[in-house]
Amino acid sequence: MIRKEMFQHEISVLRDTFRRLIRRHAKTNITKLIGKTHPADMAILFRFFTDVEQKTLFNIIMDLEYVADFLTELDEPIILNLMGDEPPQVIAKLFQRLSSNDQAGILAMLPKEKTQSVLDLLNAEKQEEVEEIMSYPDDSAGSIMTTDVFTLHQNTLAHEAIKELQKQEKSEMVFYLYVTNDDERLTGVISLRDLVTTPPETSLVDIMTDNVVSVRPETDQEEAAKIVARYNFLAVPVVGVDGFMLGIVTVDDVVDVIREEATEDFLQMAGAGKDREILLKSSWENAKSRLPWLFASWVGGVLAAFIIGKYEHMLETSVALAAFIPVIIGMGGNIGTQSSTIVVRGIATGRVGEGEELKLIFKEIQVGLILGILYGVLLGCFTFIPLVETTPYLGLIVGLSICSSMLIASCMGTVVPLVLRKINVDPAIATGPFVTTSIDILGVTLYFLIASTITQTL
Amino acid sequence: MIRKEMFQHEISVLRDTFRRLIRRHAKTNITKLIGKTHPADMAILFRFFTDVEQKTLFNIIMDLEYVADFLTELDEPIILNLMGDEPPQVIAKLFQRLSSNDQAGILAMLPKEKTQSVLDLLNAEKQEEVEEIMSYPDDSAGSIMTTDVFTLHQNTLAHEAIKELQKQEKSEMVFYLYVTNDDERLTGVISLRDLVTTPPETSLVDIMTDNVVSVRPETDQEEAAKIVARYNFLAVPVVGVDGFMLGIVTVDDVVDVIREEATEDFLQMAGAGKDREILLKSSWENAKSRLPWLFASWVGGVLAAFIIGKYEHMLETSVALAAFIPVIIGMGGNIGTQSSTIVVRGIATGRVGEGEELKLIFKEIQVGLILGILYGVLLGCFTFIPLVETTPYLGLIVGLSICSSMLIASCMGTVVPLVLRKINVDPAIATGPFVTTSIDILGVTLYFLIASTITQTL
Repeated sequence: MIRKEMFQHEISVLRDTFRRLIRRHAKTNITKLIGKTHPADMAILFRFFTDVEQKTLFNIIMDLEYVADFLTELDEPIILNLMGDEPPQVIAKLFQRLSSNDQAGILAMLPKEKTQSVLDLLNAEKQEEVEEIMSYPDDSAGSIMTTDVFTLHQNTLAHEAIKELQKQEKSEMVFYLYVTNDDERLTGVISLRDLVTTPPETSLVDIMTDNVVSVRPETDQEEAAKIVARYNFLAVPVVGVDGFMLGIVTVDDVVDVIREEATEDFLQMAGAGKDREILLKSSWENAKSRLPWLFASWVGGVLAAFIIGKYEHMLETSVALAAFIPVIIGMGGNIGTQSSTIVVRGIATGRVGEGEELKLIFKEIQVGLILGILYGVLLGCFTFIPLVETTPYLGLIVGLSICSSMLIASCMGTVVPLVLRKINVDPAIATGPFVTTSIDILGVTLYFLIASTITQTL
Repeated sequence: MIRKEMFQHEISVLRDTFRRLIRRHAKTNITKLIGKTHPADMAILFRFFTDVEQKTLFNIIMDLEYVADFLTELDEPIILNLMGDEPPQVIAKLFQRLSSNDQAGILAMLPKEKTQSVLDLLNAEKQEEVEEIMSYPDDSAGSIMTTDVFTLHQNTLAHEAIKELQKQEKSEMVFYLYVTNDDERLTGVISLRDLVTTPPETSLVDIMTDNVVSVRPETDQEEAAKIVARYNFLAVPVVGVDGFMLGIVTVDDVVDVIREEATEDFLQMAGAGKDREILLKSSWENAKSRLPWLFASWVGGVLAAFIIGKYEHMLETSVALAAFIPVIIGMGGNIGTQSSTIVVRGIATGRVGEGEELKLIFKEIQVGLILGILYGVLLGCFTFIPLVETTPYLGLIVGLSICSSMLIASCMGTVVPLVLRKINVDPAIATGPFVTTSIDILGVTLYFLIASTITQTL
């Protein structure tokens, strides 16, 4: 808790210091302060700078070794903002400091013509590499993998391997040593620590683990992340159909993927689109991505209005019926949201297995019944306190309606995401709008059906 | 996508195979199959076994080296189920295969008396270690740290360090070499790779990074996770007030923390408690943790009923007013949920900085206005299609109400989580119930206020 406060405070202090220096055009001091700020922290700070401040600082950062680490941590809309206006020559020059992966990542954000002009300025080899990375689908293992990997032939001796390792320039990403056969196909993996602790004359083939878990470049990044998380790996190799190793997905990228996928699920379940950078977008764009769900909910509301209109005669005899519409809809909607959230998250974290669906639905029906009866009785009794003008059977009507709408809502909240998974639709996308809208309509319909049945029979 | 299907399929096949073998009491084959199944996969499989199947399998696993890796991956309720009935002697025997951390983790789940009887069976040194770990608060860095760490004095030479490293038994967790001074206080850190690539006669003090980012044992695990994620660390050291290193929090635990905290936020925002194992609980316990929010929503509904009751005379003159109650509440509730989800997730991922609150609120007001006017006009026009018997000004009333309730809802959805953060309450806990219930009440009140004002003045 203490640490948290400090960090938020540090961010504010740093932001204000940078602002002051920018106002004074104190370029030397700014450069010094940038050097003292970790690139990851600098990337966070950029969220709180204006466009002009961002440009001023980036002009300085662009010339530092630092820029690669900085850009990999920066949010997409900010990168787009910084690169959007720069001529292709400047971007191509900047690219000399970046890996092919980072280059591909940035180019994927730029408009098509600009991407092409930058690509044309790269040398042929680099161009081919970047284009290959860009050819993998969005959010695939191929699109997030690091291609600078260190492989050695399986007949290499341990002490030779260490010598080779010492020649490698990029140090941060070396966790494992990947081992290949004569065909250069991946055959095994050795942890750096096993390598160091092995007698120098041992062949790699004798100490390597040969049952290597790998993913394809087209594997969904979420799946790759799940594998790294499940087996506590530091990296997982990406291998093509032909058995050649193309790169690795490292645990630091996995951490980002897990967080980003959770954010997407959050937004999708609230019907707020799936753009995790929504806070950095303009009010118009923000409104645009939230419009579709609101439209679904609008249609649901209009349908509900129709249904209530059909039962106008009932409302005319007992106006008090109208007073309980919000609670009937609200209780159904809330228990439905609870059920769908539990199930959607359970699917995302692998806690809902296939073949377990019926058990889960049955359990949710039990929960719906328990809570429905409880709140049905509670509200039914409440209507007897004559604060609103009541029909004789209002308590019964309201109690039964609450109970049945909660039961149906918990059932729907469970079934809908399970069905969506079955037909290969992301449960998070459609659960929110679909479940809440249907529950609104069903709840109102049930209420008036129960009301008319009871008043007619009793 | 293909990979995902395969994995779900693998799980089902393995589960069925284990079941068949258990039915046949084929212990030898079961032991073989367990040996071939990764402990992490085994832990996932356990979610789908019955209590009896779990016990049968665990009796075999308990005697394998494997058991430590298996238990660290297993869900809490299952551990509790497996350990609950075992006598302290059996648990103490099992503990010989576990690290102090794992021991502390399991003891924390057991009832107090049982914990004490198991502790009494451990040797004095181990007992002290376990009790120290158990003394750290829940969900703190101290409670998840690994205490088996490898430190060396700063004057050690590189080749001596490598030799020391080779003597270490626990290999998986060695990513960094931590360096201490004469007082045994942490002074620096060296990556394994830097150690390997350094001339053998170099002192550690000359190659170590001396600006070590560390956390306190009482730091929230979420904060520790954020630090590891932000700086792409493989581990962060946990250091006490006195400067002594107590342990490390490793990236594989961080991955779990990030996922678990996201799950907790999901559940809390849906008012379904914060127990991420809710799917493994009984229907009663499940209902119990979902009851409080439903009660808040029930109170909100009752208040709404009161308010509508107060305007009974209006409904008597124009029953059609009742038909639009669901859409007014629904649109407000949905836009409010969108706003609060965006802000809560923004706070969790550090995208909402301090001092940015007013800007954010202003932006959400803009979004609320854009969408409110759009849907207000849309619904206002709709009421002119005479499908329900209308008052002359119904379109105006409904349109204005939708617009203002959406504006207020988006505003509340933004302000409430920001205020909760300010007063140090987890925004995820209270946002869901508080926002939706208030919006229900406010929406209904506004609707009838607008209706009565318009019918009286026009």
